Amino acid sequence: MLSKEKIAQARARALEYFERANIVLTDEEKANIEIADMGLGDLDSMGLQLVTYVSTERCSAKELVLFPHQTCPEHRHPPLSADNPGKEETFRCRYGEVYVYVDGEPNGDIVAKIPAGKEEYFTAKHQIILHPGEQFTLYPNTRHWFQAGPDGCIVSEFSTKNVDEEDIFTDPAIVRMPE
Amino acid sequence: MLSKEKIAQARARALEYFERANIVLTDEEKANIEIADMGLGDLDSMGLQLVTYVSTERCSAKELVLFPHQTCPEHRHPPLSADNPGKEETFRCRYGEVYVYVDGEPNGDIVAKIPAGKEEYFTAKHQIILHPGEQFTLYPNTRHWFQAGPDGCIVSEFSTKNVDEEDIFTDPAIVRMPE
Repeated sequence: MLSKEKIAQARARALEYFERANIVLTDEEKANIEIADMGLGDLDSMGLQLVTYVSTERCSAKELVLFPHQTCPEHRHPPLSADNPGKEETFRCRYGEVYVYVDGEPNGDIVAKIPAGKEEYFTAKHQIILHPGEQFTLYPNTRHWFQAGPDGCIVSEFSTKNVDEEDIFTDPAIVRMPE
Repeated sequence: MLSKEKIAQARARALEYFERANIVLTDEEKANIEIADMGLGDLDSMGLQLVTYVSTERCSAKELVLFPHQTCPEHRHPPLSADNPGKEETFRCRYGEVYVYVDGEPNGDIVAKIPAGKEEYFTAKHQIILHPGEQFTLYPNTRHWFQAGPDGCIVSEFSTKNVDEEDIFTDPAIVRMPE
């Protein structure tokens, strides 16, 4: 589990990114920036910081902050019912650079650095590099992972209903919602 | 119908707002900023400028720009089928100030200036004032209209499926999607 100090430090660091990108948050949002280490306890390498603006039964919007070379581990959003094919999401880069990898034909050398010892849990190799203003829509059940470039990044996520607790991670050590 | 000159002028003006708010757009997005005068031909008073980032079968995200005191006329998003109660949307103020009016108990004096001669088409009187970082979620079939404050505004809209062509406006003179 992350220490209170580590969480406070990550929040303060994420706030600097929001300030740099001129994204205005309320005091309540600032105080509650979610720090997700996926239960791995190695936040600087794997995890992300996020602010959820909207999360209703029908749609969701978030800002994701990743520190330089920080990686959101590979996962997919599975079908949830006959009526619900699973979460669809669009990533729009707002600041920095983000390397996104999705299921599909590999298309050249991977720019991201796969966390050492975790190679087998990063299987998606189709690379999309997003700069500010660029975006990519990911349909349900597509395995994907992403990593910030050298300056970190902020990515807006626009999606259907947010069901983080249903995400399926490739690495069995991962717990998206640790106790 | 708006002249080509008026549209180009409104696009250039909207771009200044995006720059001021440090919101990065691609060149293609800049060239295609939608200028919606609702068929009224009085854009500076009634209408809005918008960039649609995402519009899929399931969700949508946009940035709306309103010039100082420009008004988006009253409308609602009706139920579309037994399975679809209509569009749900969240407005998040990013820049400037926006006065939002929704169905419900009037709560004090209205800050917005209702366009002269159009008073009967502005019936929603429950006022919500949003500053940068503040937001409001609007459930389907709620009549609403909004107006920018003296510095104009940028508002992000996060929503379920975008169905502008189904919107029902209070003013029968309005055509959301003119030819």
